Amino acid sequence: MTRPVTSHDVARLVGVSQPTVSRALRDDPRVAEATRRRVRRAADALGYVPSTRGRSLSTRVTGQVGVVVSELANPFYMETIAHLYDALDRAGYRTVVLTEPPDRPFAPERLLDGALDGAILTTTLLESELPRALAQRGFPLVLLNRRIDALVCDTCVSANAAGAAAIGELLVELGHARVGALFGPADTSTGRDREAGFRQALAAHGVPLSAWRRGPFRFETGYRGLRELLAEAPTAVFCANDVIAVGALNAARACGVAVPRELTIVGFDDIEPASWELLALTTVRQPLPELCATDVELLLTRLGDPARPPRLVELPADPVLRGTHARA
Amino acid sequence: MTRPVTSHDVARLVGVSQPTVSRALRDDPRVAEATRRRVRRAADALGYVPSTRGRSLSTRVTGQVGVVVSELANPFYMETIAHLYDALDRAGYRTVVLTEPPDRPFAPERLLDGALDGAILTTTLLESELPRALAQRGFPLVLLNRRIDALVCDTCVSANAAGAAAIGELLVELGHARVGALFGPADTSTGRDREAGFRQALAAHGVPLSAWRRGPFRFETGYRGLRELLAEAPTAVFCANDVIAVGALNAARACGVAVPRELTIVGFDDIEPASWELLALTTVRQPLPELCATDVELLLTRLGDPARPPRLVELPADPVLRGTHARA
Repeated sequence: MTRPVTSHDVARLVGVSQPTVSRALRDDPRVAEATRRRVRRAADALGYVPSTRGRSLSTRVTGQVGVVVSELANPFYMETIAHLYDALDRAGYRTVVLTEPPDRPFAPERLLDGALDGAILTTTLLESELPRALAQRGFPLVLLNRRIDALVCDTCVSANAAGAAAIGELLVELGHARVGALFGPADTSTGRDREAGFRQALAAHGVPLSAWRRGPFRFETGYRGLRELLAEAPTAVFCANDVIAVGALNAARACGVAVPRELTIVGFDDIEPASWELLALTTVRQPLPELCATDVELLLTRLGDPARPPRLVELPADPVLRGTHARA
Repeated sequence: MTRPVTSHDVARLVGVSQPTVSRALRDDPRVAEATRRRVRRAADALGYVPSTRGRSLSTRVTGQVGVVVSELANPFYMETIAHLYDALDRAGYRTVVLTEPPDRPFAPERLLDGALDGAILTTTLLESELPRALAQRGFPLVLLNRRIDALVCDTCVSANAAGAAAIGELLVELGHARVGALFGPADTSTGRDREAGFRQALAAHGVPLSAWRRGPFRFETGYRGLRELLAEAPTAVFCANDVIAVGALNAARACGVAVPRELTIVGFDDIEPASWELLALTTVRQPLPELCATDVELLLTRLGDPARPPRLVELPADPVLRGTHARA
């Protein structure tokens, strides 16, 4: 094990000063072309790699973007991170993952310590003070999938209410009159907007919501919730996301309820397992790759133009019909 | 949007030099206690957050660890990242995710630019030069799940050959005489060792391997591979990981083959969907949380003692019997 090679070693080998080495490796025209060549040759020979830390202190650019999620062990956030990672990587940024446990509010200081050029928040609660606190301090950030009521920063969401309304219309058209729902948390825009859209669609056709529960966007919410709803004998159940729907499908299997012959179950998001033959989940597609690419574009624009007024971008969310729905 | 507050602003407000501010906020005893209090009060009033970048240049500690995976859109690596993240977070380290596409070899320079204290490699190929190149340059690194033949750095793996042999024994005990396999890539230790263990178990009982394919550790390898194997009419198929097995289970459903009545399918890893009622996959459990925690411990020990000889830690991997196996 040897100590890492530094720019001082390169300077010593070439016989120039250390700042000249740094300038030469940045192709700074203040250094003669012949010297730049000698420095590059010496750096190659020694295996010297310029430090991003040294660079970041002089240019205030770390090349790192934070991605804040509430839980990693959730297929939806995992897929989100994968898409954000790809978009950030294409733009030359490193991804630093940060988690925000539901019970421990995220302190702005975790993002403001100088290691990040900006951040993408994916699990913001409606009442969160974090976006405002960060925006006030001039920290570049965008919200993904979630919004807060005041537009204090760039935000990209899908049409949650309209998508949930469309799947509600589908259940009505299929003749379902005993409809249940497993909604998401009311303190999230996704939970609130999907619930509102679904309720409005039923109400518009005079179909009552016979039984419903609210819970976190987790497998257990669907797995436990469906068992409770079964007591009310619904013929169709709307789940506020696919992870809840997967829990509900597994509970139906465990209880010997045949989907879709005895029970229709639909979700929201279109995560990857939704398209497996073993699930064949009818759901609402969130355009996740487009959401993530748009969010990264918003962040890059913000980094280049910090004074631009924040904007909200909404993308469409449409039903995907597979195998878990049937006529009542 | 305002510019961030710097230590110079704090220095100006208190009427001391900038280095005094830095020392005071580190509780350096060379600064009088009264001055330290004044500096802290001023920093609070201005909302000043010390920069980790400034700190990293003086102490050579970034507080960041790189986690290298080959693809993010894979449940196994997603679960691995979640467990590593938790273990690194508990130790006070940030996780920086880096991907290594199979077709683009990972250059040591991506890890050596000074932004990382160390790295965990999860998708190393047997012939990879990366671990040796990094170890020779004194960069702290550990391998997870994968090994290379020379022990040039700390490594933690599960008992891949023994686990695959145990599930091979199970198929033999169940009376399967027409056995197929969908193996992983031969240029990975996991692919090679699981294949070797499985083949040895069959050979020890004189059971021939009637049909087999090799492919990447992906859904498609199982989804396409099973359709090809079906032509050879096996009664049981071993899949080198659960992601392949999930592909195979979905292909069986698509082809109208009843699992386990007509066909036994088993996997390796025990990823989270394996325990869903809808899959109920019989598999071999890799102790992923323990693998990840052990790897982080190895890395922390390495950071504190760079000269320690590298070690290989192997953890047990045992079959988990669920619903996809049956008597021949």
